[in-house]
Amino acid sequence: MTSRYALAVLLLATSAAVPAVAQRAAPAAPAGVDPRVAALRDAALKDDVAYDIVEGMTTEVGQRLAGTEAEARARTWSAAKLKALGFKNVRIETYQMPVWVRGEERGEVVAPVPQKLHLTALGNSGATPANGIEAEVVIFPTYADLAAAPDGSLTGKIAYVGNTMMKTQDGSSYGQAGVARFAGPALAAKKGAAAIVIRSIGTDTHRLPHTGTTYFRDGPAIPAAALSVPDAKLIEALAKRGKPIRMKLVLTPRQVGEQESGNVIAEVPGTDPNAGIVLIGGHLDSWDLATGAIDDASGVAITAAAAKRILDSGKRPRRTIRVVWFGAEEVGGFGGRDYAAKHGKERHALAAESDFGADKIWRLGMTLPESAKPVGDRLAAALAPLGIVRGNGPGGSGADIGPTVALGVAGVDLNQSGSDYFDVHHTPDDTLDRVDPENLRQNVAAWTAMLAIVADAPEEIGPVERPAR
Amino acid sequence: MTSRYALAVLLLATSAAVPAVAQRAAPAAPAGVDPRVAALRDAALKDDVAYDIVEGMTTEVGQRLAGTEAEARARTWSAAKLKALGFKNVRIETYQMPVWVRGEERGEVVAPVPQKLHLTALGNSGATPANGIEAEVVIFPTYADLAAAPDGSLTGKIAYVGNTMMKTQDGSSYGQAGVARFAGPALAAKKGAAAIVIRSIGTDTHRLPHTGTTYFRDGPAIPAAALSVPDAKLIEALAKRGKPIRMKLVLTPRQVGEQESGNVIAEVPGTDPNAGIVLIGGHLDSWDLATGAIDDASGVAITAAAAKRILDSGKRPRRTIRVVWFGAEEVGGFGGRDYAAKHGKERHALAAESDFGADKIWRLGMTLPESAKPVGDRLAAALAPLGIVRGNGPGGSGADIGPTVALGVAGVDLNQSGSDYFDVHHTPDDTLDRVDPENLRQNVAAWTAMLAIVADAPEEIGPVERPAR
Repeated sequence: MTSRYALAVLLLATSAAVPAVAQRAAPAAPAGVDPRVAALRDAALKDDVAYDIVEGMTTEVGQRLAGTEAEARARTWSAAKLKALGFKNVRIETYQMPVWVRGEERGEVVAPVPQKLHLTALGNSGATPANGIEAEVVIFPTYADLAAAPDGSLTGKIAYVGNTMMKTQDGSSYGQAGVARFAGPALAAKKGAAAIVIRSIGTDTHRLPHTGTTYFRDGPAIPAAALSVPDAKLIEALAKRGKPIRMKLVLTPRQVGEQESGNVIAEVPGTDPNAGIVLIGGHLDSWDLATGAIDDASGVAITAAAAKRILDSGKRPRRTIRVVWFGAEEVGGFGGRDYAAKHGKERHALAAESDFGADKIWRLGMTLPESAKPVGDRLAAALAPLGIVRGNGPGGSGADIGPTVALGVAGVDLNQSGSDYFDVHHTPDDTLDRVDPENLRQNVAAWTAMLAIVADAPEEIGPVERPAR
Repeated sequence: MTSRYALAVLLLATSAAVPAVAQRAAPAAPAGVDPRVAALRDAALKDDVAYDIVEGMTTEVGQRLAGTEAEARARTWSAAKLKALGFKNVRIETYQMPVWVRGEERGEVVAPVPQKLHLTALGNSGATPANGIEAEVVIFPTYADLAAAPDGSLTGKIAYVGNTMMKTQDGSSYGQAGVARFAGPALAAKKGAAAIVIRSIGTDTHRLPHTGTTYFRDGPAIPAAALSVPDAKLIEALAKRGKPIRMKLVLTPRQVGEQESGNVIAEVPGTDPNAGIVLIGGHLDSWDLATGAIDDASGVAITAAAAKRILDSGKRPRRTIRVVWFGAEEVGGFGGRDYAAKHGKERHALAAESDFGADKIWRLGMTLPESAKPVGDRLAAALAPLGIVRGNGPGGSGADIGPTVALGVAGVDLNQSGSDYFDVHHTPDDTLDRVDPENLRQNVAAWTAMLAIVADAPEEIGPVERPAR
């Protein structure tokens, strides 16, 4: 999951949900579940396809940094995999995008006491000279404290920003804490800082820093890194002792210009071309620190495994299910924009994205047109046996489907529990060990039921209007 | 906790405990607990001294690799701290020892697919050339498989040894799994290997490798590293696919010759110089990857905090309590041997060591002379309210007190639960975050009760004979 879109989407989901709870009408009487849907759902609880995709992608491809040779290998691997699974119209659509790559990264406190630091550069970070910089650290417990610092007050200094993140099931704390990463570096640069280190936007206490993109817009790109949470706490503990802290940083990432990235597309063809496409997927690229098992090999695997169950069900769906494994999400949502630019004019009935890890799905969110309200009731009834509650939030969240959804497409959210997601998100720990096969199966079952219902719904699923963002 | 002594001690404890359970006599009727002991014990459940020591040592000193300037700073810090706490006869005793220091360390799979690895050199590892080595990997699922390989069969290859470790409360799995680290590198060198990588001797699944000493004796020191557990699993998953694996390793540690290390000693003077010394402590040095919070700042802190409670109790104990913060434990137990060489002829009544983390104490082990059997009953009764069981194992385990105990000194073990210890042991994660203040207080309470009983026991606590090791 990336930052910009995710931030907007998460903030919206949270702010929308709060008043809605108060006004909520009494729940509708439970609808019956179509036995075919129930059977497909329950069979998916024994799914092995999703785990096989995650295991294969993490082992045989590994990290998949956007715009690099590794992401290109991932596209080749993915197209072959999707063909082997029996999908139709499998193809790769490429586009150009600016690419940033990591270099050397080291940091240490040099005074008042030597302490080695575990840190990692943020995406788009500027570089220090090859032998690094050493400077005094100015402590900002929160992003608001940094914002309050006068312009020019940080000249020649290294800014430290705390901005502690709490665990939340819906991930809403990512927006609040994450602004230190999304916007902190540009703000520190504006105030004259030579570099910035932030406490990782994460909820764990391991010595594994969380990377992620930051945006400098038109300003200068200063060196910008995230400290692991224990290292950040150490800085704060040293700061409390009152002596000046000096830090040395070596960060040598670089921008390597426009490179090729791409989306991988596969379909389960429908019988009614006028009924609109059901667009699902996740993102193929990952950060470079790990093999991107939960972010987002799991998302592409869950959605493809569910679509394959419809493909293999012996009955062609009414609507075409289009599975897209988007490229270059982490670094700014390039794949999602390219898809919308190329396919936005095709009729999309509904869109849904999986990009929040591999934990169980706990909540259903929907944005449907009035004509499709019964579809929503059927979805809620079919998902309830999996432990999924019908929420009040919108559907169609996600950075990759965002540009398409923004054109007025209905959407469903199958929200995964995010309480532990930010323990691992964007760290070297995002490996296969973080994926629980049972949780993955619950996801596949929910997605299978959802697809069986929406792809075959006799109702018209037309455009929706969404609140302005 | 180091390897050589720990291995012997743990294997002994395990093998001794198993038959003893079967033969165990009915427990003695519960002895009453001296109200003074109970009061000291219960007051210690509010202790802040131990946490303050751990916090201070990890923040103000940081890593304390044996024989380096950092360990010397730790001695200075410690002597000042122990004096400030009111201990008597605080002094530093130095000795010389050979010192190994870490260099650069990087590794990657280069074929069949590029995958970056998280690894760390083992103590005493040899070095690769500065630009590294690249070679084919030969997979040995266990240490026994490596042992079965013919001499010369690994010429020019990199050996990989799995030897998975399970969680055990008493830590006994460390010996069984750990042999891959203690002895695997020398064995691989003997068979011609150019280098060796092992699966970390650890029970976690984070991308944080576990270091620790290996011993080459008289053979050549080849480059030897531990992969994090997820990286080791990745190697095994690639191996299952059947294509040859090639790995690149850059490891540039070096031996820097004889350097100064030392023990820090402090006392609570007793009233009866003929009653023998009660020797307690842990080790001051740590591995260099982290701040050594659980290994072993916690051990030195717990023992000193308990001794301070006796010091401040208003009544001088009968026996002198000597707190020793040993140097250079991790790299071969140099501090413990120096102490025994300098002090072994003094009369020691009893010895006890804390070097197994910061989790709760669950079991009491004792090796006491016949004359002191009632002391054992009183200990068991006083510790039971803390949830501590009376075990059948010996007392006096530990690498640092080992050489003194071997001279025939009685001993007590206050065994900490080790189920999670090897999640963190010797990794970059051994920081303050791993220390639960409540668990630390339970330790201090147990140690305080133990000291109150043994330091004041009217019984003679004379020499003991132990089974041959």
